[in-house]
Amino acid sequence: MTIPKEIDTPEIMIDRDVLQRNIDRMATAVRTKGLHLRPHVKTHKVPEIAEMQLAAGAAGLTVATLGEAEVFAEHGAKDIFIAYPLCVGPRQAERLQRLAARARIAVGLDSREAAETMAAALGDAVGEIEILLEIDSGHHRSGITPDAAVEVAQAAARAGLRVTGVFTFPGHSYAPGMPLKAAEEERLALGKAAERLTAAAFHITHRSGGSTPTATLTGSSGATEVRPGVYVFGDAQQLELERCAAEDIALTIAATVVSRHEGTAAIPRRVILDSGSKILGGDRPGWTTGFGRLLDHPEARITALSEHHATVVWPAGATLPALGDRLRVVPNHVCVAMNLVDEVTVISGGEIVGRWRVAARGRNK
Amino acid sequence: MTIPKEIDTPEIMIDRDVLQRNIDRMATAVRTKGLHLRPHVKTHKVPEIAEMQLAAGAAGLTVATLGEAEVFAEHGAKDIFIAYPLCVGPRQAERLQRLAARARIAVGLDSREAAETMAAALGDAVGEIEILLEIDSGHHRSGITPDAAVEVAQAAARAGLRVTGVFTFPGHSYAPGMPLKAAEEERLALGKAAERLTAAAFHITHRSGGSTPTATLTGSSGATEVRPGVYVFGDAQQLELERCAAEDIALTIAATVVSRHEGTAAIPRRVILDSGSKILGGDRPGWTTGFGRLLDHPEARITALSEHHATVVWPAGATLPALGDRLRVVPNHVCVAMNLVDEVTVISGGEIVGRWRVAARGRNK
Repeated sequence: MTIPKEIDTPEIMIDRDVLQRNIDRMATAVRTKGLHLRPHVKTHKVPEIAEMQLAAGAAGLTVATLGEAEVFAEHGAKDIFIAYPLCVGPRQAERLQRLAARARIAVGLDSREAAETMAAALGDAVGEIEILLEIDSGHHRSGITPDAAVEVAQAAARAGLRVTGVFTFPGHSYAPGMPLKAAEEERLALGKAAERLTAAAFHITHRSGGSTPTATLTGSSGATEVRPGVYVFGDAQQLELERCAAEDIALTIAATVVSRHEGTAAIPRRVILDSGSKILGGDRPGWTTGFGRLLDHPEARITALSEHHATVVWPAGATLPALGDRLRVVPNHVCVAMNLVDEVTVISGGEIVGRWRVAARGRNK
Repeated sequence: MTIPKEIDTPEIMIDRDVLQRNIDRMATAVRTKGLHLRPHVKTHKVPEIAEMQLAAGAAGLTVATLGEAEVFAEHGAKDIFIAYPLCVGPRQAERLQRLAARARIAVGLDSREAAETMAAALGDAVGEIEILLEIDSGHHRSGITPDAAVEVAQAAARAGLRVTGVFTFPGHSYAPGMPLKAAEEERLALGKAAERLTAAAFHITHRSGGSTPTATLTGSSGATEVRPGVYVFGDAQQLELERCAAEDIALTIAATVVSRHEGTAAIPRRVILDSGSKILGGDRPGWTTGFGRLLDHPEARITALSEHHATVVWPAGATLPALGDRLRVVPNHVCVAMNLVDEVTVISGGEIVGRWRVAARGRNK
């Protein structure tokens, strides 16, 4: 694809056709597994994309913060899970109550202390929110062991909260060779926690799993729903994990060659693009090949990022792009790239068809 | 300092007293070296802070993009250097002309091709912009060797551009043991380039150096001015490079403990804070101890960041913070943290005294 000449760089471009295909493919894949899809909209933060996901059959939305929940509720979402162990004081309780007046709201929880604080802050509204206990399935971030689930659920119930499910984020799936292992650990953790809670007379309706690398590996024996986010766009991490192909990449950053250097014996042959960490984001796990990829030049490597410079090392055999050439860059992690811009350009059939506002950008709390 | 109870987390807090002291100290240090200070305002993107820098004697401002230049020009800046090898087409030329109508504008350049494109786009306005050639002093990003300066300057002059100086960014100073070496290489590169240009009859009025790690090491034998940015706030990188002390940190992120785990033999003892990569930024050079630091707990290590989670490993001897505790986090790189929020809270004497808008946030082009 040629980057439309109306675009000044750096600019996030979303290919709506590829996006629609990604949304439909995941919807079908998850449905055929007998699971519900509750996409994580922190990835895109765009109400128009959430509408496409709901139209394709998503059971509801996942968000990470109260602020994201508010944006999507204002845009009509009726079923929102805040997949985060919220610390709820009086101000957060007031916001949760306003949300619960217009949508089904569930929130994460992983301790007795958080349950008691939340219940106290909610007061009479304590029954208006559903609670999903967070289970650690091997990522070792937040979450409790399946063995600890009953104790926390009972504390929550004593405080008046309604525990209706369990969730986990198998974040350790984001590395080569890990998706199947992480999906299996997710299945075991959710299954074990739900079993113990059921045995303790809790009515568990939601067993919620992650993540783009594992979403199509999760089975209905462990989960009732999955919460992938990145699948809508794909990114360089998913490409390098082989969870998507180059043709599935729906989000690229239009960038311009602002400096070029044939290199010397001591200094690499390279071009500098105007897509730095302030549009690509700085994420760079050790197993990736660099700070993103060039969609049309798989042989190039992004070896360094400054805020407004991407250093792209070019192999000896290939022609170095010319100054002013415009290239498409795939960020390592689309969720942080989208969070850097207020608007994106929407492309269809190679033409600009509109702009979307990143309505929930920066809603960190 | 106790985090004021009015603040919901995560939130960027700026201590105005420490900020003022940092601004004054750098102004004095640079002045005593016989240099001008042209602070890089991409760090903060806040007009109120630029005003404090100009009031303390800054000769002008440095920005990275046309959009940043526009924001600060609208707020009254009269002398702006866009320290970037801009690729100038018709739309950029129009914006440069509008800028030049209200301020002295200089831009970076590092090739004959860019000079010819820029001059063609500027047309009759070609003389309204000053040009500083970018010299590579060892960072090997953009920039040319001192030996190539005359050739590029002559091409620029033939195209009608006014070359008035040279600049370099000694970005290789951002690593332990590198500041003195980088400052010396900066001195040699600027001196050599300026000498050759002067010998070729160019009138060189500006020799412009970087950077917070080197700014107080640069001498007037190489440069006429320096362009540090980060010094206003300090950050975890500068702390770990020993370019500032903990008491010089003016920017912290108020964060809440949302999950805590005493750990096991296999799983680290840790707390999870609500300050993830969407407020701290994802920068993490290999030589840093983690993804930022805790200002009041130098023994803790931020071992992982998700978008809304910071995993903080706590040593065996120290008491693990309680759920709901609020801690001050120092980001690795303040420039990317500031670019993630639309507003910040201003503190003085431990109290909230106002809010500043990050007016140039996201102005990537």
